Amino acid sequence: GLGVWGWQRAAMAASEEGEEEEEELRQRFMAPPVSGLRELRRRRRELRSRMELLIMETQAEVCRALAALDPGATFAVDTWERKEGGGGISCVLQDGEVFEKAGVNVSVVFGLLSEEAARQMRSRGKSLKAKDGKLPFCAMGVSSVIHPKNPHVPTMHFNYRYFEIEEADGTKQWWFGGGTDLTPTYLNEEDAVHFHKTLKEACDKHDVKLYPKYKKWCDDYFYIKHRGERRGIGGIFFDDLDSPSKEEVFQFVKSCAKAVVPCYIPIVKRHCHDSFTPEEKLWQQLRRGRYVEFNLVYDRGTKFGLLTPGSRIESILMSLPLTARWEYMHTPPERSKEAEILEVLRNPKDWVH
Amino acid sequence: GLGVWGWQRAAMAASEEGEEEEEELRQRFMAPPVSGLRELRRRRRELRSRMELLIMETQAEVCRALAALDPGATFAVDTWERKEGGGGISCVLQDGEVFEKAGVNVSVVFGLLSEEAARQMRSRGKSLKAKDGKLPFCAMGVSSVIHPKNPHVPTMHFNYRYFEIEEADGTKQWWFGGGTDLTPTYLNEEDAVHFHKTLKEACDKHDVKLYPKYKKWCDDYFYIKHRGERRGIGGIFFDDLDSPSKEEVFQFVKSCAKAVVPCYIPIVKRHCHDSFTPEEKLWQQLRRGRYVEFNLVYDRGTKFGLLTPGSRIESILMSLPLTARWEYMHTPPERSKEAEILEVLRNPKDWVH
Repeated sequence: GLGVWGWQRAAMAASEEGEEEEEELRQRFMAPPVSGLRELRRRRRELRSRMELLIMETQAEVCRALAALDPGATFAVDTWERKEGGGGISCVLQDGEVFEKAGVNVSVVFGLLSEEAARQMRSRGKSLKAKDGKLPFCAMGVSSVIHPKNPHVPTMHFNYRYFEIEEADGTKQWWFGGGTDLTPTYLNEEDAVHFHKTLKEACDKHDVKLYPKYKKWCDDYFYIKHRGERRGIGGIFFDDLDSPSKEEVFQFVKSCAKAVVPCYIPIVKRHCHDSFTPEEKLWQQLRRGRYVEFNLVYDRGTKFGLLTPGSRIESILMSLPLTARWEYMHTPPERSKEAEILEVLRNPKDWVH
Repeated sequence: GLGVWGWQRAAMAASEEGEEEEEELRQRFMAPPVSGLRELRRRRRELRSRMELLIMETQAEVCRALAALDPGATFAVDTWERKEGGGGISCVLQDGEVFEKAGVNVSVVFGLLSEEAARQMRSRGKSLKAKDGKLPFCAMGVSSVIHPKNPHVPTMHFNYRYFEIEEADGTKQWWFGGGTDLTPTYLNEEDAVHFHKTLKEACDKHDVKLYPKYKKWCDDYFYIKHRGERRGIGGIFFDDLDSPSKEEVFQFVKSCAKAVVPCYIPIVKRHCHDSFTPEEKLWQQLRRGRYVEFNLVYDRGTKFGLLTPGSRIESILMSLPLTARWEYMHTPPERSKEAEILEVLRNPKDWVH
């Protein structure tokens, strides 16, 4: 089921906004938006407002689709503020029937970029001209990791985000980033094809060059270098996207966000009642360990979050699985189902041609 | 029990060295030393040889003491080579009665320092003058993490290492590093005092200023910044130790290494048959998660190892627990046993005054 806790707070915030608006908020979102519905309406033509509505709608859409599959469980909804500016809404379902841990987080933060963050961005090739060393920024995004219980249901991750920085001369730099990717414990070709095909269709509406480019970027990004393995079977990933135009990139990101439910939910439905053995559960736990290794050692978002003052640790680390396992020198037997997925993680496949 | 696998290989290596020597090897070490017993004897006055014998003896001493407490379990002994130079011996006991995972690793590696490693060392304040960009080095050490099953038996970690670098003009820079520290799931004051007192006595034999300095260094080093907690209740930690003299530092390191068994084994004996509840086991698993966070996000040794070409990943990551758990927003009740240890992890105590 869906959580209600966020709405207890929401009711208070909404009292100013009238009952009708409260009802609308309740139907559309998991909690009132960080910037307030009135403010978002007033500035409805600005991309920042449209993106905030998109990430709020995506959060609600995904949480509702997941809750419908796990009726006994409840999403905890936490709204939080960042003292440096902005805040967020974290929705987490833990230890359900179908999902071990499912988190969907929205954050809308603004303020002045930290020195460390500015240095990291410059090292990625951005030229940022600061006024008196200060760089006002606004960052918003929706991010999610879904860890199911059944080892035949894959883990899914997605994240869509928008960044704006105001330079000394008043010009604004902006870019979008994001992606959706799948991490199965066991390979199921039909699922892999469905997942990639759905993402490809979302991309193709905008430019047929996008899917191949972002599919490769995903395989390159989610690489656990010390293991020589990818985290999963990929999907799409992109960053620093700032052309052809703000409007066109936003429409592309919107298509990707709308593809999350159709690319993942049918796979969960298909396998959440599959039977499994204790050995299959154990292999899942070992793969969970690899997921933790990637997120803590390599993931840029996690590392950036852990090192940023005022960030909400619980929301960043909700991507970690409920449980994980590390065995010394575990090697699956040749030609086993475990060796089959390892082979694909070592040598990514083309799923849609 | 002790493993035998290392000795099957050992027998082959030792055949050149004669039966008597083989017998001596078997009694003293878990496997033949990387540099060979003859070579170590020939160069017995050199510090490198004496340190290699010390780390080999420490490995055997600790493995024997642990195996004696977990008679049903066996240490797997793996000897491995590094193609760039050197190798090591990893001893791991997994899923025993008393120990969930106990690893004791020796490595003796040499070759040319990678650019990345040289840069990191320079960033720590070392001036390294390279000849044609090349810096011959030798690094050796023993490192170990012991994760027991019973939540009333703490996790223990120790590491003692020696580093040598040859500069362009032929002068050798050298230093020692290391430490021993304890990570309990629940606080037991008597154990904490015993552990710290034993370490203090080892330090005091050399200089009474050492224990307070290295106790503080340990509290500062094992800090999980994003949680505002230390990993455990500390012990001692030091690095870049290169004075007053090579001989004196070696004698100090030897005292520390000899203190590992007396500071930890009595604690294991005292609690390994304590009864515990499922709730206590769960809290242990959550603390294991924090252990993983520290090792993957902050630990210099782990990060250095993961990024060094040719390093043996299984030996580096054997420090990770067999199982770990992450719950969203877990907060222990006030005045509980769980809150008690958290308080000490947030505000380290002085255990011996």
